Amino acid sequence: MRLHRALPRLFGHVTADAHCDLPCGVYDPAQARIEADSVLKICQKYADNDDSEFRSRAILIKEQRSELVKHHLWVLWTDYFKPPHFEKFPELHQLFNEATKAAGASGTKGSMDAGKAQSLLDQIDKIAEIFWETKKAA
Amino acid sequence: MRLHRALPRLFGHVTADAHCDLPCGVYDPAQARIEADSVLKICQKYADNDDSEFRSRAILIKEQRSELVKHHLWVLWTDYFKPPHFEKFPELHQLFNEATKAAGASGTKGSMDAGKAQSLLDQIDKIAEIFWETKKAA
Amino acid sequence: MRLHRALPRLFGHVTADAHCDLPCGVYDPAQARIEADSVLKICQKYADNDDSEFRSRAILIKEQRSELVKHHLWVLWTDYFKPPHFEKFPELHQLFNEATKAAGASGTKGSMDAGKAQSLLDQIDKIAEIFWETKKAA
Amino acid sequence: MRLHRALPRLFGHVTADAHCDLPCGVYDPAQARIEADSVLKICQKYADNDDSEFRSRAILIKEQRSELVKHHLWVLWTDYFKPPHFEKFPELHQLFNEATKAAGASGTKGSMDAGKAQSLLDQIDKIAEIFWETKKAA
Amino acid sequence: MRLHRALPRLFGHVTADAHCDLPCGVYDPAQARIEADSVLKICQKYADNDDSEFRSRAILIKEQRSELVKHHLWVLWTDYFKPPHFEKFPELHQLFNEATKAAGASGTKGSMDAGKAQSLLDQIDKIAEIFWETKKAA
Amino acid sequence: MRLHRALPRLFGHVTADAHCDLPCGVYDPAQARIEADSVLKICQKYADNDDSEFRSRAILIKEQRSELVKHHLWVLWTDYFKPPHFEKFPELHQLFNEATKAAGASGTKGSMDAGKAQSLLDQIDKIAEIFWETKKAA
Repeated sequence: MRLHRALPRLFGHVTADAHCDLPCGVYDPAQARIEADSVLKICQKYADNDDSEFRSRAILIKEQRSELVKHHLWVLWTDYFKPPHFEKFPELHQLFNEATKAAGASGTKGSMDAGKAQSLLDQIDKIAEIFWETKKAA
Repeated sequence: MRLHRALPRLFGHVTADAHCDLPCGVYDPAQARIEADSVLKICQKYADNDDSEFRSRAILIKEQRSELVKHHLWVLWTDYFKPPHFEKFPELHQLFNEATKAAGASGTKGSMDAGKAQSLLDQIDKIAEIFWETKKAA
Repeated sequence: MRLHRALPRLFGHVTADAHCDLPCGVYDPAQARIEADSVLKICQKYADNDDSEFRSRAILIKEQRSELVKHHLWVLWTDYFKPPHFEKFPELHQLFNEATKAAGASGTKGSMDAGKAQSLLDQIDKIAEIFWETKKAA
Repeated sequence: MRLHRALPRLFGHVTADAHCDLPCGVYDPAQARIEADSVLKICQKYADNDDSEFRSRAILIKEQRSELVKHHLWVLWTDYFKPPHFEKFPELHQLFNEATKAAGASGTKGSMDAGKAQSLLDQIDKIAEIFWETKKAA
Repeated sequence: MRLHRALPRLFGHVTADAHCDLPCGVYDPAQARIEADSVLKICQKYADNDDSEFRSRAILIKEQRSELVKHHLWVLWTDYFKPPHFEKFPELHQLFNEATKAAGASGTKGSMDAGKAQSLLDQIDKIAEIFWETKKAA
Repeated sequence: MRLHRALPRLFGHVTADAHCDLPCGVYDPAQARIEADSVLKICQKYADNDDSEFRSRAILIKEQRSELVKHHLWVLWTDYFKPPHFEKFPELHQLFNEATKAAGASGTKGSMDAGKAQSLLDQIDKIAEIFWETKKAA
């Protein structure tokens, strides 16, 4: 089993601001995945609870978590991946563009559909697979 | 004269957090350019002033402004540009990837060289040119 | 046509934190105007869409954009305008005070009325007019 | 002794983002004063410690605390004070403008001089005096 | 009368980010109390106003203010209180753990009940009492 | 091998703001550990590089990463751990208090010593061990 798949519900309970661009050299697609997992859980809890106060809070928090997914993916795309990676995996640009869109207004930000959250998770898994291949090759 | 060149020193004196992903539909490459311009000015003032307190502040503020350039470009890449744009301008992915890298550790974050800030500005101008073509076509 | 009027939908998709107080010397009332424009668009989309999830998101995002209007105006008032400007334009203090109030609880934060957003835009335009006069004179 | 003078070193160890513009109706000039007091303490510790790492941290933290002073004063000026207050205390606009400038590049942000921090504190005290008079009158 | 009790509705209208860990040596439980007071006022205004837009804003702002209570208490617990304090007041750990929980999902974040806000205020008062005893002893 | 030990350099390249207090129910001590690992890497790079600009950036970024360690630990202590956990592991309060102090002014914030960063990592590992025991028991 690939390790990043085994990660037991890591969380990313923070609001993105800036990534460590020293750089410290530490990257992992798990962070984006964790936020997307949090988004999925929020969608599921929302579906099971029709209290209007709870639902307002869920919408607010899902917005923040989705933004974090976008941020973590952007950081990977710009800061971790280098030209040789893009040559070897030419689909990477589109994968990242679609995954970040999937966490935006047309995706998990704009919808409470757990299916959209699951689809976002699947896209992150595709990116993670490539990420770990490049780490293995390094 | 191209409009985005004519912008008289717009500023972007804010720290990025989240973009309006309602979406409100308002986008402009000027914001990234303004931050890059601020980075350039900081590099120039740094070169002209060897006071250590001033220099510490300049490094700190340049870090924030460079992060803003990255954020504004990421927002354009994910939220404004759609599949038909990427088909028509296949170089867009690489342009954005290089421009955001140019605002990171290997670019304006990691250096006080005004040349790197100017190069970042030039890359943003290329993106802006395509942006305005797509707006005209819309 | 005055340039700042010609700005084609600049955007300000960021959350304010701190302005570049090095200072880098780059200021423009367009940023406040863009946020106010975003607020106006949100009000219009809100009026056209009675989906409760969409409306919750609109309220949340409008709150952030209104806060940005306030921040950008405060920065101009404190950091750009100097004593000679206030002598020449004694109405400036009140203009800024009213415009920032117009983006607060009694204005666009506390209301979904597009008229309030338009009024805020008009107040920013008055400030911008003075701003550009002072720049011309400099 | 006036109460706000007696405040025993309240602290304001937070980074400003947004003020509660519901509004909840709770205002106090102490917050700005506390941040200015923190700035003063930082300047004093900086003068007593010539370790370069310590000094870099002091500059960084003083920048944030000064920004907080500005933010708290802006909130008071826009959100608490109303037209009747400005009529009764016509010097208020200038007091606020000068105090926020005193926390900026020409004041405590741009200098490690404890005298500038003390001067900022004095300006905040003048504002506080008026604030408490308006509260008493309410 | 104890001074911290006399504080006339100090406010803490900011979003927490980082505490001044230079450290500048300035601490006060009033900040947490002020935020909790703001939470209480929001709950009361919510109860008196059934406008759905107002209520959405109240939920959003209460979430932020509750987060601030947690942050300010965490800072006191980690940064102000030292081993000798915990020896002398062995109940401190639990007091802080319960107070921060009282500002979270099971407390003021998850509820619009003014009683929960009042209970949070009472817990902060207990902490403040110990805080001032340790200051007096210092 | 325990999974959380195996985590291959997860990263936490974000600035803490608020944790998902819906709650979504997703927690993991890995986040704090990742930030501490980033702090360690920064200390090592600092020791190997005496360029003053690089060092200023390292100090600035280490400050942010250390703050994130504190935030992630506070969230675990308040939001994940419940009374039965504290009964079963009475050392937990002190462990958390010491670990958060180890990321503050007396620890990794106030020092560039890689030993302090390693010690912080060790303290987080002790907490993680208890965390996973409670998860297993759940």
